[in-house]
Amino acid sequence: MNESRVNRVLKSMEENGIPQVIISDPNAIFYLTGKWIIPGERLLALYLNTNGNHKIVINELFPQEEDLGVDILWYNDIQDGVEILSKYVEDGEIIGIDKTWPSKFLLRLQELLTNSKFVNGSHIVDHVRMIKDEEEKELLRESSRINDKVMEELIPWAGKGLTEKELNAKVREIYKSHGIEEVSFDPITAYAKGAADPHHVTDDTKGKYGDCVILDIGGFYKNYASDMTRTVFLGEVSERQKEIYNIVLEANLRGIAAAKPGNRMCDVDLAARNYIEEKGYGKYFTHRTGHSTGLEDHEFGDVSSVNKDIIKPGQCFSVEPGIYLPEEGIGVRIEDLVITTEDGCEVLNKFTKDIIVVPESR
Amino acid sequence: MNESRVNRVLKSMEENGIPQVIISDPNAIFYLTGKWIIPGERLLALYLNTNGNHKIVINELFPQEEDLGVDILWYNDIQDGVEILSKYVEDGEIIGIDKTWPSKFLLRLQELLTNSKFVNGSHIVDHVRMIKDEEEKELLRESSRINDKVMEELIPWAGKGLTEKELNAKVREIYKSHGIEEVSFDPITAYAKGAADPHHVTDDTKGKYGDCVILDIGGFYKNYASDMTRTVFLGEVSERQKEIYNIVLEANLRGIAAAKPGNRMCDVDLAARNYIEEKGYGKYFTHRTGHSTGLEDHEFGDVSSVNKDIIKPGQCFSVEPGIYLPEEGIGVRIEDLVITTEDGCEVLNKFTKDIIVVPESR
Repeated sequence: MNESRVNRVLKSMEENGIPQVIISDPNAIFYLTGKWIIPGERLLALYLNTNGNHKIVINELFPQEEDLGVDILWYNDIQDGVEILSKYVEDGEIIGIDKTWPSKFLLRLQELLTNSKFVNGSHIVDHVRMIKDEEEKELLRESSRINDKVMEELIPWAGKGLTEKELNAKVREIYKSHGIEEVSFDPITAYAKGAADPHHVTDDTKGKYGDCVILDIGGFYKNYASDMTRTVFLGEVSERQKEIYNIVLEANLRGIAAAKPGNRMCDVDLAARNYIEEKGYGKYFTHRTGHSTGLEDHEFGDVSSVNKDIIKPGQCFSVEPGIYLPEEGIGVRIEDLVITTEDGCEVLNKFTKDIIVVPESR
Repeated sequence: MNESRVNRVLKSMEENGIPQVIISDPNAIFYLTGKWIIPGERLLALYLNTNGNHKIVINELFPQEEDLGVDILWYNDIQDGVEILSKYVEDGEIIGIDKTWPSKFLLRLQELLTNSKFVNGSHIVDHVRMIKDEEEKELLRESSRINDKVMEELIPWAGKGLTEKELNAKVREIYKSHGIEEVSFDPITAYAKGAADPHHVTDDTKGKYGDCVILDIGGFYKNYASDMTRTVFLGEVSERQKEIYNIVLEANLRGIAAAKPGNRMCDVDLAARNYIEEKGYGKYFTHRTGHSTGLEDHEFGDVSSVNKDIIKPGQCFSVEPGIYLPEEGIGVRIEDLVITTEDGCEVLNKFTKDIIVVPESR
């Protein structure tokens, strides 16, 4: 196990008065043990106790060749893994449960341990994962460095007469040529009307002269996600498009300026949102300003108007305001990932935010 | 809602003494309402009560244009959907919970309803879904009819010098040419040593003269899965390969012969397994004989030695014995889907089980 991460979790358990937790999310288990185990519908549970009596329950179908640094409780498909685990859980104590643990396991554990108080314990690991350590920061930086290059190679393809689906496939192809096997989410490659609809599903539309094109892309580099959006224009950019673009750009910059310790997460959202509202487009900015990122593209910690959490150094999140005008077929979003520092933030994406007009070149 | 399916669920609730259930699995909700709603990490819950007071809780992000035939309780991202639901749940009564419901929702509901008894209620819907109605049977038949054609077109490609990954991509391409957009599982296209390892991950190996090739493929036709395996031979088949093939074929036929109402699911497994054991290869048949299939490729109801459930008419499951000899680089599996009838079963896959030698033709 990663001792310093586990110790941060144990310290938080003590502070929160939760002496034992069950962690089942494979991302959280990778974060703490360095091993990916994807159990499907089967039980996988890392049990941590502030007294040091940690265990992990794994199905025999997932043999572990290396030492995980924690006792393994093996079970097979005709054994009751929860019952095996229950012998090590302290009945009568509070027990924190992973928010995504399937109810079949929790209900069985509740049958076996009738004196315990079961609570949602995910906030403990979620808050620890929210603060990235140096190793994670370096991986996130490199992941976004690659994403910058992918964006640079992708943009000329927006002018080559591909359909949205073909452009989507091109994104994946470019990632592969950079050694990135997996995208961190289905790339958004949307022309004009598609760009103007944040719920648009990639289709067979081709780009045409004068279109705006939203390119929202990310990949996994050594398990860490990147995520960036740029909006470019085909052939020419109209005054109207420029006007919208510049409002979104200023909102993006204001959001980034507000991304600093001491502010609340909602302050980042408000900095971007208030500017767009001032300019009269508030009702066309229809989503939150961002989300935390790390081992998953979307992690705990929204950049939204309702998240009052105080920002701390070492958080990684996106700042991605947008304006969507379906009747005009104009959509603009500009997104960067940032990592917060002691007194501000480092912007991971260096790719230009100047207006780009892509020449058509079929 | 599909009245006859909902009525079967309500009847089973009464028989099981569970007056109310919460269903959250999108497959089960599609089965009962005819609508796909994929909520991601958000709450989606169909609440059924034997008194007829049914509700469904849906996030506003998933607007429904058509009538679902059940009252919708809408909530948004800053509302507590579980609390909204809890007002309609009868506290003090038993409540059946979906086995996959994330613990965060169950724990919140348990906070709000302190007098209820929470139990795993999935077996109710699972058992109803296990018995296919006429509409489902026809979709499963057509799905497997298409799968037969895909297999026929695929087999010549096994001799064309493709890597396993390329052959895997070819499977998907052939499905698309038949109007099937989605495979029901990652196709298995494994040569020789890969075929001899049931946990093999598709790689860049190419087939060579004398190899056996396992082709285990399936797609979704109008939401219903197909799933079939054939094992073919490149260039020639050795006497040893024939011997193994014929044992597996006989086990497949014996499994199918045992697939009839009145027998138990484990009897199908045993019919196949006992024959392979008789022939001295018991320890090389390392998995269960099959699984139920429908809206999902793997559904509730294993064909395994521990499933003592009595078979009923209308079940759909796979019969797929195999023998894997890693040291000889020989692996053979033969799989068909069946639907049980009043006194036996209908085999959905008509594609030949005669030994096929694929000519090499690069």
